[in-house]
Amino acid sequence: MSDTPAPVELLVCVKCKRGTDVAEDGERPGTALYESLAARDLPEGVTLSPVECLQNCEGGCSVAMRGGDLRWTYVYANLHEASDTDLLLEGISLYRDAADGLIPWRQRPEHFKRNCVARIPPLRKPAPNLTDL
Amino acid sequence: MSDTPAPVELLVCVKCKRGTDVAEDGERPGTALYESLAARDLPEGVTLSPVECLQNCEGGCSVAMRGGDLRWTYVYANLHEASDTDLLLEGISLYRDAADGLIPWRQRPEHFKRNCVARIPPLRKPAPNLTDL
Repeated sequence: MSDTPAPVELLVCVKCKRGTDVAEDGERPGTALYESLAARDLPEGVTLSPVECLQNCEGGCSVAMRGGDLRWTYVYANLHEASDTDLLLEGISLYRDAADGLIPWRQRPEHFKRNCVARIPPLRKPAPNLTDL
Repeated sequence: MSDTPAPVELLVCVKCKRGTDVAEDGERPGTALYESLAARDLPEGVTLSPVECLQNCEGGCSVAMRGGDLRWTYVYANLHEASDTDLLLEGISLYRDAADGLIPWRQRPEHFKRNCVARIPPLRKPAPNLTDL
């Protein structure tokens, strides 16, 4: 096993209307959020993926973060396409830096502390050498 | 690749208080839900796992379902330890039977339709032979 943490993926729900009344041919807030991220340089080791519905429709916009068998997966809610791009880029970088996906509480962005919808445990427990890092 | 769907895992948040005032040494509703499931015969291909906090604390009790790289992962909320064991055993069986994790809408338990907190896409898209099944 390598000591290098696995790459991570930022998944954005592109179908999200964020409670707004979007015209049939209008751009959805979730798509706008995805595009605002896609227009930026992503941090190293981070990929961006569009998803058709994370089914957190009451709390959009929503994103998920995952990365390998050793990390917790997180779902965050109540993001805004116009103002939360920097937050998400910072957040995914911190997530990437955590081998288990647990961003230390003091470093965790305030929005993440208050808007976590759910988290799912890693598939594997880290090997002892990883917990010692 | 085998045509046999991967085994599935039912994860139960054992820390959940379900909004109740649990004594320090009292049994938490999440633990009771887990134990009521553990006391039953699980359907074939299903494993049961306790989790310390799925971070859906506002909507407990909560469970997650996952199974292999081809299935969507689901998180369901607002479950009750005293009455939802059968619902969960039925639900995880239906989930196990779906190679992509998408329980057909007409078969989907009503509780699942109205209490999905989030879902996370599969890591891989199914091979054509699986989508043809």
